[in-house]
Amino acid sequence: MFNAYNQALRDQIRAWLQEDIGTGDVTTAFTIPVGAQSKGIIHAKEAGVIAGIPVAQLVFEIVDPTLTCYAQVEDGQYVDKGTTLIIVEGSTHSILTGERLALNLMQRLSGIATKTRKFVDALEGLPTRLVDTRKTTPGHRALEKYAVRVGGGANHRFGLYDAVMIKDNHIKGAGGIIPAVERARMNIPHTMKIEVEVEDFDQLEEALQAQADIIMFDNMSPSRMADAVRRVKSRAPHIVTEASGGITLESIREKAESGVEVISVGGLTYSVAALDISLDLNEKKAEA
Amino acid sequence: MFNAYNQALRDQIRAWLQEDIGTGDVTTAFTIPVGAQSKGIIHAKEAGVIAGIPVAQLVFEIVDPTLTCYAQVEDGQYVDKGTTLIIVEGSTHSILTGERLALNLMQRLSGIATKTRKFVDALEGLPTRLVDTRKTTPGHRALEKYAVRVGGGANHRFGLYDAVMIKDNHIKGAGGIIPAVERARMNIPHTMKIEVEVEDFDQLEEALQAQADIIMFDNMSPSRMADAVRRVKSRAPHIVTEASGGITLESIREKAESGVEVISVGGLTYSVAALDISLDLNEKKAEA
Amino acid sequence: MFNAYNQALRDQIRAWLQEDIGTGDVTTAFTIPVGAQSKGIIHAKEAGVIAGIPVAQLVFEIVDPTLTCYAQVEDGQYVDKGTTLIIVEGSTHSILTGERLALNLMQRLSGIATKTRKFVDALEGLPTRLVDTRKTTPGHRALEKYAVRVGGGANHRFGLYDAVMIKDNHIKGAGGIIPAVERARMNIPHTMKIEVEVEDFDQLEEALQAQADIIMFDNMSPSRMADAVRRVKSRAPHIVTEASGGITLESIREKAESGVEVISVGGLTYSVAALDISLDLNEKKAEA
Amino acid sequence: MFNAYNQALRDQIRAWLQEDIGTGDVTTAFTIPVGAQSKGIIHAKEAGVIAGIPVAQLVFEIVDPTLTCYAQVEDGQYVDKGTTLIIVEGSTHSILTGERLALNLMQRLSGIATKTRKFVDALEGLPTRLVDTRKTTPGHRALEKYAVRVGGGANHRFGLYDAVMIKDNHIKGAGGIIPAVERARMNIPHTMKIEVEVEDFDQLEEALQAQADIIMFDNMSPSRMADAVRRVKSRAPHIVTEASGGITLESIREKAESGVEVISVGGLTYSVAALDISLDLNEKKAEA
Amino acid sequence: MFNAYNQALRDQIRAWLQEDIGTGDVTTAFTIPVGAQSKGIIHAKEAGVIAGIPVAQLVFEIVDPTLTCYAQVEDGQYVDKGTTLIIVEGSTHSILTGERLALNLMQRLSGIATKTRKFVDALEGLPTRLVDTRKTTPGHRALEKYAVRVGGGANHRFGLYDAVMIKDNHIKGAGGIIPAVERARMNIPHTMKIEVEVEDFDQLEEALQAQADIIMFDNMSPSRMADAVRRVKSRAPHIVTEASGGITLESIREKAESGVEVISVGGLTYSVAALDISLDLNEKKAEA
Amino acid sequence: MFNAYNQALRDQIRAWLQEDIGTGDVTTAFTIPVGAQSKGIIHAKEAGVIAGIPVAQLVFEIVDPTLTCYAQVEDGQYVDKGTTLIIVEGSTHSILTGERLALNLMQRLSGIATKTRKFVDALEGLPTRLVDTRKTTPGHRALEKYAVRVGGGANHRFGLYDAVMIKDNHIKGAGGIIPAVERARMNIPHTMKIEVEVEDFDQLEEALQAQADIIMFDNMSPSRMADAVRRVKSRAPHIVTEASGGITLESIREKAESGVEVISVGGLTYSVAALDISLDLNEKKAEA
Repeated sequence: MFNAYNQALRDQIRAWLQEDIGTGDVTTAFTIPVGAQSKGIIHAKEAGVIAGIPVAQLVFEIVDPTLTCYAQVEDGQYVDKGTTLIIVEGSTHSILTGERLALNLMQRLSGIATKTRKFVDALEGLPTRLVDTRKTTPGHRALEKYAVRVGGGANHRFGLYDAVMIKDNHIKGAGGIIPAVERARMNIPHTMKIEVEVEDFDQLEEALQAQADIIMFDNMSPSRMADAVRRVKSRAPHIVTEASGGITLESIREKAESGVEVISVGGLTYSVAALDISLDLNEKKAEA
Repeated sequence: MFNAYNQALRDQIRAWLQEDIGTGDVTTAFTIPVGAQSKGIIHAKEAGVIAGIPVAQLVFEIVDPTLTCYAQVEDGQYVDKGTTLIIVEGSTHSILTGERLALNLMQRLSGIATKTRKFVDALEGLPTRLVDTRKTTPGHRALEKYAVRVGGGANHRFGLYDAVMIKDNHIKGAGGIIPAVERARMNIPHTMKIEVEVEDFDQLEEALQAQADIIMFDNMSPSRMADAVRRVKSRAPHIVTEASGGITLESIREKAESGVEVISVGGLTYSVAALDISLDLNEKKAEA
Repeated sequence: MFNAYNQALRDQIRAWLQEDIGTGDVTTAFTIPVGAQSKGIIHAKEAGVIAGIPVAQLVFEIVDPTLTCYAQVEDGQYVDKGTTLIIVEGSTHSILTGERLALNLMQRLSGIATKTRKFVDALEGLPTRLVDTRKTTPGHRALEKYAVRVGGGANHRFGLYDAVMIKDNHIKGAGGIIPAVERARMNIPHTMKIEVEVEDFDQLEEALQAQADIIMFDNMSPSRMADAVRRVKSRAPHIVTEASGGITLESIREKAESGVEVISVGGLTYSVAALDISLDLNEKKAEA
Repeated sequence: MFNAYNQALRDQIRAWLQEDIGTGDVTTAFTIPVGAQSKGIIHAKEAGVIAGIPVAQLVFEIVDPTLTCYAQVEDGQYVDKGTTLIIVEGSTHSILTGERLALNLMQRLSGIATKTRKFVDALEGLPTRLVDTRKTTPGHRALEKYAVRVGGGANHRFGLYDAVMIKDNHIKGAGGIIPAVERARMNIPHTMKIEVEVEDFDQLEEALQAQADIIMFDNMSPSRMADAVRRVKSRAPHIVTEASGGITLESIREKAESGVEVISVGGLTYSVAALDISLDLNEKKAEA
Repeated sequence: MFNAYNQALRDQIRAWLQEDIGTGDVTTAFTIPVGAQSKGIIHAKEAGVIAGIPVAQLVFEIVDPTLTCYAQVEDGQYVDKGTTLIIVEGSTHSILTGERLALNLMQRLSGIATKTRKFVDALEGLPTRLVDTRKTTPGHRALEKYAVRVGGGANHRFGLYDAVMIKDNHIKGAGGIIPAVERARMNIPHTMKIEVEVEDFDQLEEALQAQADIIMFDNMSPSRMADAVRRVKSRAPHIVTEASGGITLESIREKAESGVEVISVGGLTYSVAALDISLDLNEKKAEA
Repeated sequence: MFNAYNQALRDQIRAWLQEDIGTGDVTTAFTIPVGAQSKGIIHAKEAGVIAGIPVAQLVFEIVDPTLTCYAQVEDGQYVDKGTTLIIVEGSTHSILTGERLALNLMQRLSGIATKTRKFVDALEGLPTRLVDTRKTTPGHRALEKYAVRVGGGANHRFGLYDAVMIKDNHIKGAGGIIPAVERARMNIPHTMKIEVEVEDFDQLEEALQAQADIIMFDNMSPSRMADAVRRVKSRAPHIVTEASGGITLESIREKAESGVEVISVGGLTYSVAALDISLDLNEKKAEA
């Protein structure tokens, strides 16, 4: 998951711990004897695709580097209800202090991975690539886009900075698709792609003339989209086609059968039901 | 909403903008002419309780202090589909750059307020207080707890630092409810309350003897809870009673009719469907 | 002292070191040979109650993780003049660079613990709880409140955020004690207490009617306070009584004999004489 | 006081406010009506030299830029008990939220200025310069050194980075004063001075040979110091002489009469009694 | 230059000012009377292309928002020796405190723009695009890439995050160009381009088969590169060709005449001679 | 190089890595197999004086603490083209991710050290001290001043805060050299030196009367400077003399033969050609 340098994530986790712990976990500090040791069992309370194991491990490591965390499953695995996900051993104080943040993160990320998997399954056998959008939780984009990948999806651009995406508002502002693309191409690095959102065949024609790298069909019916894809591929096979706009688990397969290569679904990271995961303390201590 | 000093929120918004904008919004920068002016209309695409108007205003102010934002509704108002929420005027570049974060925040907060309102409505006519939990999105706790208040609910403790909450794991660790409460009371400020979670009447008896300030009934049936509340109130009327554990929109009224004074519902901030809100550029420009 | 997660303190110590060291300790860097090793002996130059041993250890650990620190006494211990408190061994450069901050912190914290102990001793045999206030050094509140606990005292609230404390100015602003308490109770979490400061028996009556959780008597004579405490306890035994205002080592016992349960003393952290502590380098090297 | 660029102080004040306010001033937020306006009068409750007026103003400005602050006296002024120092007008919420930090800072800084003035007065008619040390409160050095100047003193070096100060431990480590000074001089910028602490006349002779820029006499009796000063001045008049070590208000004049040019007193910023200052709300409102 | 949200640059400038000013500009503070007003004239001491006017303005605004800055030229303008670039008026203290940083930045950025312009001029009449590399000064990348654009060049990718660039070391690690490109394409967003560096025609063939978006010829002679470009364009006209490796002002035109579309030159931001620019105080005051 | 406490440098390196890596090194992440191990050889591609070995080591340590770095030369060593400087072993991902920053820093610092050595060599046999100025790259001052020392030079003041340097603009503002020096001496710590820049003998006379600690001759011819130095030394031998202004490798020896003790050269850190250094992966793997 993580590249060699994940300082930003560590800083983020520190800030999130600070939000919860503030001047100190008074309950743990004043009810649990100093030095108490425990085993915490993190397990799934419902079935789903797990994401966030290494994130939870990092939370416990930051709370207390002397804790030891044993992952029992890997990110991307589908687990049944009751499956043990992580065993964390060491200071009871530290386990209880990190518990809430570790669970909050795993629950949300696993919810995203589980939802993504359902969309991926709906595309089974088709070559279509499922991608996310920028409708992520503020401050959680990198993690949520990771969870989409864990669920079997792929990512759209990371932010406003790493690709040009010309939508309705930009087309209006620039006076048309062709001037918008031309002005962008002149100014951006040659290493950056230009995507254009089109609503009809007139706009599609302009996007083709402008030689956009990606053409996105907004809210188009499957049959019209099939026509649109054919037109793109016959004219410029290297241009990537994408569908977007209100796509649901019910409608995605029909959309994909139009031959469009990429489908972006905001709902992968938006309005997601968290997966129920909890931590039991000491449950297996006798066995230890 | 905000107290006089909201520096922490401003810093948070700056970081969230940075996440999206990074080294710059290349699309806006290179398609929209410098100096272009627009009017942006933020409107509800479905009905619900609005929360986050001042947060969105702050986002636009931080992006560009020369933008002007006119709130058309107030936080806490129930609006129909199509209602205009905010009008923002000024640099097109700035409006487009702030758009995504402003919407992401309003959608999530309004989703929480809308869900909270449904629970509050289910309690209509009863004196029960509906409260949230610590199951909030990391980094968003203050905002999400605000949205609960906007929706008509109240807040549980803010974090691990501002009240003692003795749960199952602490009771085990301390060797019982009575030593746990005594040890806590001896050490915490006299300005801080002690809440004890009980699962049965034996534990309730211990919590009463220990003189907890709040007693929380975990996953108790309405009828047993009615007994429990009566026992508390007959023995120590100033002790506050609370119910928790898997409470849904369907079950909350029956739980409340037990006479319990406070009901905490994790779902208020957890697995929430965002309210659909979007921004149209220039829509009313002709009128301007 | 410290909970599992003391990131905030580490960051603070880094900033304090930066204040002193800036672009580098030129004296040590350019007079002491690289690689020189020493033993530093931190000892008390006057008798008192020690606080801050783990803080000083953390300073040295942050300056240089290869230093080894041996605590010779524990926080809370009363020591005579000349007692060795900490032995720190390793790089002479690192010891000298961390020395000033480690001493500055221990001196101040031990001064607070020593002063607190005197007040505690003055209350010997009485059940009264001695607490501090918010009159702490900016940036040092958590440490200073810790030192009060080390000295045998307890803490009042940590800040403006963790308890309601209605004073004169709030009463004026709200139009009376009863509306102030009611408005607060309606809005704050049920996990939070409300304290009311009263100056006379009329206000006391209002505070009782409003069912404040804590009633604080401001600058009341011991005999009047004894009456006040009796009235509170006869009406609502669970309400906590507190005395405040200009209480000195001379007057505290008489105040406490009124039966008031808590006495808050701003002077515990305000105008405190530091305890004289210093570091000798190599003194015991021959023995090593 | 402040140079054109005081960003560091603003950041510090923000952090100090955060320490006190945390997630919000619940008392003010929930007892004082939104929009309430007041006048706050900050006044001296005992006589002394005032320091920190612009700091308190900055606190209120940071809490709420719409507050207006009128300074009634200037830093450095000696005031009688009861003197009004600052009038602050505007939002009651903002005044009450900033009150504690503004007072905590003014009280401590005025305590330092008042103590410094007493030492300066003890030197009346003599040319001796009174200076502080590095025994300052961590995080408050720039402010405390400012308060010393306000009280009529001057500053010693700001930290470990802006002058070389060779003490006992460095002399031991370097193998003598002469090698220590030589090694330092070779390595430091030519813009930096070298000070050497000497305990006897042998060391003084070495310091003279090494051509230190400043020679500091540690704990020397006035008569021996008079000899030492004469020896320095007869040999190298440009070398500055300094006295240090346990100097009190009682002993300083006799020390100064030795002719030593600078006297450093750790106690100026160490173990200082704060000056009692408080804020009354609305007191003069009728007049307004 | 700057997009709507340049918070990161402001934070950077604050840190750079802090580096120079530290605990205060002692010279200005103690030689120039408080309240002194001046006019500062920033002018070119040699001819060149100016870059950094808005950066210098931002420096002065951050040092002191009451300063007024009048730009006399625009970024990208070629100026002769002696040309006035900026007039800054207001507090002498503030002008002198900001002077060094403002000049250091303008000198370096103008040096880059001037050097870039020379390369652009060498390409006159050719369609070749001149771009920079990641060989920028740590902490200055966004500014230096801006200066390249000001000089008439364009930018290569901004960092390791916004495009895939497969070089020698990656090819070795992946076991060939084809597996490297395939593995990358499968994992990266479809919005991101893949560039491959090739050293010979075998590698070129692989890159063509792998359908790289950009093919970069490393250190190829002009004649071989002309062949290579022809082969690419005949096979896949949408693939962009790029030349890199040791290209100088002397060799660039011949390289460009090969028909390659993009030439990247590390030296644009590396080993650049700063343009001499200085500030005179008050020079034109008489006229004011 | 580094004192015991180099937290500031670590933070800086983290920020510089973040600038390059952003949301992740997509090329390495998606072409190199996880777990791949390599040996990286950093070697000089041209001859020069090396500076920055420990900085590069710190970069790799921060990227990945499991990398091992073997320095093959020491800072300050003159090396021939082709010399191996550092061998870094471990995760290929980590080596490639840290490569660019490590090289960018070493190249720049070695460029400064190499240039400094040339000036030092030009002064061979003379007692003159060569020093730098504040014309450093923003954010890099401590490192660049270190590289000057590595090259055999010494440092001028570190910033505006650690010495007084009265130049033309200050003299004008203060109404002459004597009032400027007097005002400064009264206010600054006695541990701080005062340097005065003079342009002619009238100003020199004033500087001598004012008893400046350092007198700097601005743009004076060698013969006039020889006179000036003699005058200073005959009147006050402890006053240090310095030359500044447009001094080049060609002119420095003649300037130095005037007898001036210190020569400051802005060009040591300004307009410096970087030394060409690169990293080869695996080159020596067979030997490993």
